[in-house]
This record gives sequence, structure tokens and C-alpha cells, in this order.
Amino acid sequence: MGTAGAIILAAGEGKRMKSASPKPMLEVLFKPMAVWVTDAVRQAGIEDLCIVCPQNDKMQEFFSATCKIAVQREKLGTGHAVMQARSFIEQHMGGEIVVLNGDAPFCGGETIRAAREFHIKRKNDVTVITARVKNPFGYGRIVRGNGGLERIVEQKDADAETALISEINSGAYVFNAHSLLTALNGLTNQNAAGEFYLTDTIDVILRNGGRADAFDAQDEQIVLGANDPIQLYELNRIANEKSIRAQMEKGVRFVSLDGVVIAADAQIGPDTDILPGTIIKPGCIIGSGCTIGPNTLIENSRIGSGTVINASQVYGSRVGDKVKIGPFTQLRVGCDIKDGAKIGDFVEVKNSVVGEKTSIAHLTYIGDSDVGGGVNFGCGVVTVNYDGKNKYRTTIGNNAFVGCNTNLIAPVTVGDGAYIAAGSTITEDVESGDMAIARARQVNKKGYANGRYNKK
Amino acid sequence: MGTAGAIILAAGEGKRMKSASPKPMLEVLFKPMAVWVTDAVRQAGIEDLCIVCPQNDKMQEFFSATCKIAVQREKLGTGHAVMQARSFIEQHMGGEIVVLNGDAPFCGGETIRAAREFHIKRKNDVTVITARVKNPFGYGRIVRGNGGLERIVEQKDADAETALISEINSGAYVFNAHSLLTALNGLTNQNAAGEFYLTDTIDVILRNGGRADAFDAQDEQIVLGANDPIQLYELNRIANEKSIRAQMEKGVRFVSLDGVVIAADAQIGPDTDILPGTIIKPGCIIGSGCTIGPNTLIENSRIGSGTVINASQVYGSRVGDKVKIGPFTQLRVGCDIKDGAKIGDFVEVKNSVVGEKTSIAHLTYIGDSDVGGGVNFGCGVVTVNYDGKNKYRTTIGNNAFVGCNTNLIAPVTVGDGAYIAAGSTITEDVESGDMAIARARQVNKKGYANGRYNKK
Amino acid sequence: MGTAGAIILAAGEGKRMKSASPKPMLEVLFKPMAVWVTDAVRQAGIEDLCIVCPQNDKMQEFFSATCKIAVQREKLGTGHAVMQARSFIEQHMGGEIVVLNGDAPFCGGETIRAAREFHIKRKNDVTVITARVKNPFGYGRIVRGNGGLERIVEQKDADAETALISEINSGAYVFNAHSLLTALNGLTNQNAAGEFYLTDTIDVILRNGGRADAFDAQDEQIVLGANDPIQLYELNRIANEKSIRAQMEKGVRFVSLDGVVIAADAQIGPDTDILPGTIIKPGCIIGSGCTIGPNTLIENSRIGSGTVINASQVYGSRVGDKVKIGPFTQLRVGCDIKDGAKIGDFVEVKNSVVGEKTSIAHLTYIGDSDVGGGVNFGCGVVTVNYDGKNKYRTTIGNNAFVGCNTNLIAPVTVGDGAYIAAGSTITEDVESGDMAIARARQVNKKGYANGRYNKK
Repeated sequence: MGTAGAIILAAGEGKRMKSASPKPMLEVLFKPMAVWVTDAVRQAGIEDLCIVCPQNDKMQEFFSATCKIAVQREKLGTGHAVMQARSFIEQHMGGEIVVLNGDAPFCGGETIRAAREFHIKRKNDVTVITARVKNPFGYGRIVRGNGGLERIVEQKDADAETALISEINSGAYVFNAHSLLTALNGLTNQNAAGEFYLTDTIDVILRNGGRADAFDAQDEQIVLGANDPIQLYELNRIANEKSIRAQMEKGVRFVSLDGVVIAADAQIGPDTDILPGTIIKPGCIIGSGCTIGPNTLIENSRIGSGTVINASQVYGSRVGDKVKIGPFTQLRVGCDIKDGAKIGDFVEVKNSVVGEKTSIAHLTYIGDSDVGGGVNFGCGVVTVNYDGKNKYRTTIGNNAFVGCNTNLIAPVTVGDGAYIAAGSTITEDVESGDMAIARARQVNKKGYANGRYNKK
Repeated sequence: MGTAGAIILAAGEGKRMKSASPKPMLEVLFKPMAVWVTDAVRQAGIEDLCIVCPQNDKMQEFFSATCKIAVQREKLGTGHAVMQARSFIEQHMGGEIVVLNGDAPFCGGETIRAAREFHIKRKNDVTVITARVKNPFGYGRIVRGNGGLERIVEQKDADAETALISEINSGAYVFNAHSLLTALNGLTNQNAAGEFYLTDTIDVILRNGGRADAFDAQDEQIVLGANDPIQLYELNRIANEKSIRAQMEKGVRFVSLDGVVIAADAQIGPDTDILPGTIIKPGCIIGSGCTIGPNTLIENSRIGSGTVINASQVYGSRVGDKVKIGPFTQLRVGCDIKDGAKIGDFVEVKNSVVGEKTSIAHLTYIGDSDVGGGVNFGCGVVTVNYDGKNKYRTTIGNNAFVGCNTNLIAPVTVGDGAYIAAGSTITEDVESGDMAIARARQVNKKGYANGRYNKK
Repeated sequence: MGTAGAIILAAGEGKRMKSASPKPMLEVLFKPMAVWVTDAVRQAGIEDLCIVCPQNDKMQEFFSATCKIAVQREKLGTGHAVMQARSFIEQHMGGEIVVLNGDAPFCGGETIRAAREFHIKRKNDVTVITARVKNPFGYGRIVRGNGGLERIVEQKDADAETALISEINSGAYVFNAHSLLTALNGLTNQNAAGEFYLTDTIDVILRNGGRADAFDAQDEQIVLGANDPIQLYELNRIANEKSIRAQMEKGVRFVSLDGVVIAADAQIGPDTDILPGTIIKPGCIIGSGCTIGPNTLIENSRIGSGTVINASQVYGSRVGDKVKIGPFTQLRVGCDIKDGAKIGDFVEVKNSVVGEKTSIAHLTYIGDSDVGGGVNFGCGVVTVNYDGKNKYRTTIGNNAFVGCNTNLIAPVTVGDGAYIAAGSTITEDVESGDMAIARARQVNKKGYANGRYNKK
């Protein structure tokens, strides 16, 4: 008894895509199509993956940490692609090999799991995952018979009756590892294109007395792929509609769906309103009772409940409950904004902790800083975290007051309850309870304004 | 002869909404559904309203200033809900009581007015407001006869012929107050659910020899409501389409409707272009020949003519003619921006008057200020309106020139035509025609730059 | 043998548009409808244009540099409009005159060119450009016969059989110049409206023994025009869909099309991702492998390859390769941003050169400046380019370091590799390798903070 493995065929080039990227790396809802497939495989409980890549260093590197890599140097057909993973198949003798297309993102984990269970229960040598589609033209038709799969007929070979069959080959399969290996050895490229076709393994298996069967996934979308940018946009549209609908069903509200794009893995609580133009990229968890948007982008972040994010962008950060962000705010990677804080307009925070109920209302940059709770920042404060050579941290205690247009030259520490007068450049620590000021004296010159400003 | 009153049934919970708010408080185009109904009632000329609320303090408080409140503590049916308003009904003896659903936002003022007039003219005891719909399944069917309403047949009781009737009960009614009171006394809860149904009042009235009739509103949308967030989104979509179309008919132009959401009460002049991503929340009046958007949000504000608002947000403010705002500007509550002013990028103005043709071009915060006309603000000016304890105002005269990165420490007054040199922190008043400067002297240190900046 | 000329009929008022602008000046994808027509004429190889304008100074001025202007003072019909261009027609004797409607933007250059070639080859006196439409109601029907055009029958004159003809008069024509002149002389206004109709020229020409023919443009959209803002929006929608689709076919990618508006002349390279809410106005060339958007507006600019523009606006500028812009950045007219530069959040650049790999990360205004490569700007830097009377330039050498919250009072020069300490106001030149500082000394006052900040 072996373990299951999955081979993802991702060596396709897709010239009609007009892209320098391999087709399986093109994104649907901000996730490469091949990653939709690897995610589904893992969701189906299969942990050992082999991805068949083209000769593309970036793509191989992208998957190297999470998958075994096989490389298909020549484009000699889907059968040839699987042959590149021969040693991977050998590692699973006695188990199953699932073969999936790296550019068919909607063949989900539940389908894969069910197909594998079906395969094992029926004691098949090969199980073709199929779908029934409205327009089967162009697909291989599934001819059932003898309690199993009799054969797959390609479009060009289909007679009138066969052409009417609406059940088609999705291009995804479950094989017994040893049946697959044997069948690969029996494949030939004696055809017009001179290629090795994976579908021919069915014939080989049946000729060898093996058992082939078809698993109807009852989901037309599993066959969807994209050959050009228009079809790729269609995949995005379909995935996004599904994603938004799933959020609605959980109690997320939308006044308009325009410009709303929500990654498939988003977790959003009920009673949260999403306004138009909001993009939730992968890796986000958002609480309940929030107002997100309009025109907001959140990526790889965790947002609490009752928080407002208005016309802002948040990357790789953690934001607490009842925080108010925006409009026109950026949280760059590495922020931890505690409950009840307020980050207002034209404020950037980067790689910093901002304590509870601290207010950073406008035109301020907080970088590489540890800010306590209850702090009030005036307008135009800058943490000067870079001196041209190194980056330094700024530390500000609880309940400090930092006046407008203050420069805090890091490394510098401002103590609890310290007070900094507006317009100061602070180069030395300010202890708790002290006031710091660094300011030139004002001089008024009588009548000197005259003629200096020519009002238009 | 009594006066009319309206009872709005708004005690529904709507568990499928998955919201902590009562369903009638959920918003369509930024206005709670129940407020659509109370607005329509007043538009129909009925000033005395009683809203039947659930036990929800926030909701009762929300309506307490504008409506009488009845509370339905137990959910025992629509008839029971109306019973909670018995004393309200008694105040209108001799007049009419309109009963409306607090979660059917599209039963408009004209429909209510016409139904009431019909009711009075026909000398009815009860008038059911009806609609003819394409798919009547699930609704109570209107069986007309004897020159009036014979009965209402619920879906479960409808035989094949009755099921074909397309005229349905909208759930809105006009009653004579005394007929309603009497009928309520005759209601029973002898049914499967053990509830008191308001529809049963028709039977009671007819049995008592009263006159029931049906008023066909000739508007399918009056019956629309929402039971889940998907349907609530649909109500928003329908209302928004109607709202945008009404604006188009008045001469407002759109290059694309995407992300445009316009509250139903918006008044916008002809020749105004609305660009994508623009949200006009309730309470806005916008003049003609403006360009609004893209990605602009305006709430509760009055905008003049020939004004441009680009990628900005405006709250509770007044903006004159030929003003240019944005991109990336925020006007917070309480601004009065006079004709021909310019508020540029990364500028926040709050609770301030900005005079005619004054220019605030970039990266500036004007808060709690009174600024004259013809003033020029350099980049990075901050009105320091908060000292940690109190907020103070800044006053700037006409034609003053405020140099870049100036801090104006309020309370402070800058006179007409005064001139402030860049980089100054101004703590004392500057008189008219004077120049103020507060600046440290520049020192250049020969060769000191070397090694300080490691260009990457 | 004469040369061809084109007369564009653009004197229509379009009262249903509710606009103060003449209808042909209203925009489809940010370009006046009449300019769609003049562009198409030039694309068809016809360089001499005469536009028949209403009495509207702005419109006449708008076209005066590129077209001859005829003015139709009274609205006496399309024939009368063409009569105003009599001297223009006389200049083309022996050649052809194309007559087009200034508010039918989709009659393209290829159609005009093909119609003219057809006209010359067939030796016609007049060629009507026609379309076959699904619903011909309201249009003049094309009655073909005798190897040419027999007559055009207006809706009101069409019998049942003629009304079924789906080929209609688009309102665009090719005339021999002399045939047109002669026919205009033969026109009368003896009809119900008392107007001179251009269609009547066909009859006159046929009566004079001339040859009339119909050129089927095989494009239903050539007849599309707009009589009210709803139809104008429809033209925008159709044009935008076509424009986006053309970009997709060239390899441009979209995760969502919402809020995306792309001018018809945009050139965008493959592998560029356009995110929602992105508006590409006329005059833009964008390279390959860029990410543009969300919520970005670009006008009349050239963008290199591999560049990111996120939630920003760019006007009349040139941006190199691998530049990162945004979020929340504005490039105003006249910027030249070199390869690898970074312009971050809340930065405005205006009329400036920014050298390679220079970083302007946050809250900065660079105006009227020449900045070298490898420069690092801290946060909050302001080039003080205006002293109330004049604008001056700032010059910054390569690899300089400009500390946070620095004011550079122009005219001023900062040498290569110079270093400016944070918080300085720089009024004098800083030589190469020198460090400049202008800063007040910090004073810490023991215990003075107490009671100054009442934390809420």
C-alpha cells in the first residue's frame, strides 16, 4: 500500500497569452493558476506534489520549496510531460498518482478527494475526471460501457452520435502508480503531431486488461482554462463572482460590487460592509462590523472587528478592533496597530507598533518605531529612521504628545507622557514627563511683506 | 374627521441577514430601509408616524426624535405588531391609518398618497395596496369581486386557478382607524404558527359588513424586500440604477457607471460629469458643469457650479463655484470653501473658512481656521490647532503669503498681506504687511558629507 | 483631377442633451465626438477638412488650427449646413467631398477610405454610406435598383414593403465636388419643415442623369449617435468595451474591468496588468510588464516597461522603466522620471527631472527641479519654488542625501554627494561633498510636560 502523489502539468507556454510568463504562472484572483491546483491537491489530503515545469528558472524556483520539480525540455505532449516525473511515480508504487493540469484552476480539492475515493473503491487502474458541459465541441468525449470507461474519443475522431455526448474528459486523472508507469512505457508518438498523449494511456491500460472508469465531477467549471488574455479575464470574473457570493452568504454586505475583487481565501466577518473599488488580496482575515473601502487594497493582513479602512492600502500588517484608517493612508509591511488607534489622512506607517488609542491624524510618517498607547501625534511628524547608512528605531512611550512638524532623529526615545513642542527637530532622548523644544525665535519685520507677494 | 397616521412595522429580525442590526436598519443607498419608508410617508403628506421597533435601544433612539415608538417584545405576527400601536391608532379615530413594512423601501410617497385618496374616495374600511408581478409564487393573491376585494389567498391555500392570479398583496394597507381597531379586537392566533396575522383583518372587516378594496399601485417594485445580504445587495443595485438614470435624464453625464453610487436624494446640475468610482452619499447638492471623480466621495455637502473634485473626499461642507479640489484631498466636516479656491493634493481642511481664490496647493493641514481670500499657502503648512488640552483657531487675512513648512501655533493671527518665510514656526501674531521669520542659520560643513550616505 | 475634402456637419445643438456645449463637442472616451470624426477623416488619408459649426466661439476656436470653419447661423437643415461650405467645395472641383456627421463617432477611417475608393471605381456622382441594422425604424431606407441607388425613402414615406428594408442611410456620403455643388443649387425647402435636406441631393443628381450608389459599410455602429445623456453614456460604454477588448487581444491583462476606461488611442504593451478603477486618457503610451492601478489616472504620458503605478495620477509626463509610483502620488505636467526611480506615497512632482534610481519615498513636493540620479529624499522635503513673485528652479546633484523635512529655498543648488541634515531650511548652495545643517538646538525642560496633554 503506497501513498498518493500528484503530478501537475505546468509546462505549457500559451503563446496566445502574449506573455513572457509560462501560462500556469498567470494569475486568477492574484494567485497563479498552478497554485490554485497545488492548493486544491493539498486540500484533497495529498501532500507529495511534483510539478512539471518548462525550462524557466523563476518558475522552478517559485515552486522549489513546496513541490518536487520535473522539467519538460521539449514540448512532446502531455504523455511526455508525465514521463519526466517517472521517478516521482516510482516513489508512489502501490499508491495513486493524480494528474492535473496546471492551468485549470477550478478543479477543486473536494473533486480531487472524491475522485480518488471513487478510484480506490472501484479498484480502477485509471479514473478519468469528467464533466458534463453544454457545448462539448473540442473536448474528448467519454464513451461509457461495460460498467466503466470504454474509450475517449477526440473531437476529430467523433462521429455524429459520439459528438452528441456531453460528458467530456477534463484532463484530470487518478492512476494507480504502477498502472501509469506501465502505460507510459506502452505509449507511442505514432500520430500526426509526433507527440505522446496522456489520454492514450487509457487504451494501453484497457488493452492490458486493466480497468478504466470515469468520475463525473458534476461541476462544469473544472474544465475551464484560458488560452488568451480574454479567457484569462473570464476566469478572473468567474472566480471573483463566486468569491463575492460566498462572502455575501456569510453576511458581508455590498452597496455595489463594482471594482470589488476578493481573493478566494479571504475570511471576512458578518456585518462588514465592503464599498466599491475594494481589493482584498490573498492572505486576509477581516473581522465583523468593519467598513472597508471605497478604493481600499488589503494584502496579507489581519484586521479586527469594528474597524474602518477608507480609501487606503494595507500590506502585511495586523490591525486591531475599532481602528480608524484613512482616507489616503498606507500601512506598509510589518505594522501592528492596536485597538482603537486612529491613522488619518496622508499618513504612512511602516514596520511599527502603534499602541491603543494612539492618534496619528495627518501628514505623518512613522517608520521603524515602537509607539505606546494614548500618544497624540500632531500633523507632519517624521520619524527620521535612515541616516544614509543605517536604519534606526524610534521609541515613544505611552501618552506622549508629539507636536506638529516634529522630526524625531532615530535612534531616539521619548518617554511616557513627554511633550514635544511643534516644529522641533529632536536629536536627543526626552525623558518621561519632560518637555522638549528646538525652535528658532520668531522675528517680525515691520512692513517687510510689502511687494513680496504679487497676488494674481 | 380625524387625521391620518402611519404605522411602520420594523420589528423584524431577519436572522438570514446575519447582522447584529435589526433588518429595517440595514441600508439601501446609505439609508436604512425603515427611513426609506418614513420618508415616503412624509412625502405622502402624513406627518404622524409610529414605528414598531424590536427591543433594540439603538433603533428606538434613532427614531425617537421623528416618530412615535411602539415596541413589539414578542414576535407574535404582523397583527400583534400593529396591536402594540393601539394607542396611536386611537389618536386617529375618524382618520386613516396607513400600515407599511419597514423593510420594503420602494413603496414610495406617490403610491401611499394615491392609495389613501382612493381609500377615502371609495369609502373603504380597508384598502390593500397591491402589485401585479411576473412571479406571484409565495405572495398572498388578491381575489377581486363584488366591486371590491373578496379575499386574500395565501400561497399554501391557493388552488390551481387562484395560484395563477398575478395581483398580490404588497403588505401595505390603508385602514380607517376605527375599522382597524375593531378588526384587531377580532383577530385570533388560532393557526399553525400561533400568530396574529394582519391580513386576517380583511376577513374580520368583511364579516362585520365593512368594505375592503384593492389599490393596484402599478409598480412591481413596491413589494421588494430583502431576506439575506444577496437580496439586500439587489435592492441597492436596483435603487442605484434608478438613481443614476434619473440623474442622466436631468443632463448629468457619465463615461462609465462603474463604482458610481448616488443617493436617491442627490441633486446634481446638468453638464456635470461624474467619473467612475464616485459615491454621492445622502444630503448632497451639486451644481452644473462640475467634474466629480474619479474615486470621490461626497457626503452631506453643497457644491457650487464649475467645480472640480478629483479623487477626494468631502464631508459636511460647502464648496463654492469654480473651486478645484484634489487629487487626494480631504475636506472634513465644517468647511466653507469660497469661489475659485484651490485645494490641492494631500491637503486636509477641517472646520475652516477658506476665502475666494485662496490656494492651498499641497501637503497642508488647515484646521479650525478662518482664512481670507487670495492667500497663498506654500507646501507643508500646518495650523497647530491643538496643544494637548484645547483647540484654538488660526486667523489669516486676505492676500497673506504663508511660506512652505510653516507651523502656525494657534491661537494666532496673520494680518492682511503679511508674509511668512518658509520653515518658520509662528507663535506670535503677524501684523498686516509685516514679514515673519523663525529660522536657524544654515551652516555648511566642508567635506562632512563624505561617507554619510552609502548609495545603494 | 482634384483632391478630396471632408465636410463635417457639427452645428447640431442637441437640446435633449441639456448641455451648454454643442452636441458634437460632447465627449466619448474623453474625446469630443466631432474629433472622432476629424480623426477618422485624416486616417482615411483626407487632409483638408471643413467643419460646419454653430455660432459658438469656443467650438470654432477649438477647431480653427486644424480645420477650415464654416458657420451655420440658422438651423435650416443638413443641405443648408453643407451650403455654408460652398467655397470649400469649390476648392475641390474635380475631386471628392466626403460629408460626415459630427456626432456619429464610430464611422471610422477604414470605412471612409473604402467608400471613397468604391465611389471612384464605380464612377459615381454620389455614394451613400449605408449600414444594415436590426431595427431600421426611423432611418431612411436604401432602395437599390438599376445597379445603383434608386432612392432613399424616409420613415414617414415608407410603405409596408419598404419599411422592411434593413439597409439604411448612415448620413455619410461621398460626392463628386461638382455634382454636389450642382445638386445644392437644385435643392429646395418646399417641405413641411421648410428646411433644405442633404438627402434630396440624391434625387437632384438622379434627375440630372447622374449616378448614385450605396456603399454598405458592413458595420452597424457607424450610424450610432446620441440624442440625450443616456445614449451618450451608451456610446461611451460601447467605445470602452471595444477599446478594452483591443488591449486584451494585444496581451494586456485585467483581473476586473470595473472602472477601467481606456482611450481609443492608448498603446499598451503585453504582460501589463491593469487593475480596476484605472483611467487611461488620450495620448498615452505604456510599455510591457507594467502594473497600472488600481484607481490610477494617466493622461498624455509615456510610461516605460516594468513600471508600477499604484493609486496615482500622472499628467503630461514621461516615466522610465522599472519605476515605482504610488500609492497616492501625483505627477503633474512636465515630469521626466528616469529608470528605476521610486516616487512614494503623498509625493507630488511637477515640471521636474528625477534621475535614475532616485528615491522620493514620502510626503514630499518636488517642483521645478532638476534632480540627479541616486539621490535619497527623506520624508517631508519641500522645494520652495515660489517666493510670492517668481518661480525658481532647484538643482540637486547625483547621490545627494536630502534629510527629512528639509526646505530647499530656490534658486538653490545642492552638489553631487552633498548631505543635508534633517529639519534644515536651506537658503544657500551646498557644494559637492559638503554637509549643510540649519537647526535650532534642542532644549529639554524637566517636568514641563506635566498637565500639558490631557489624554482623552
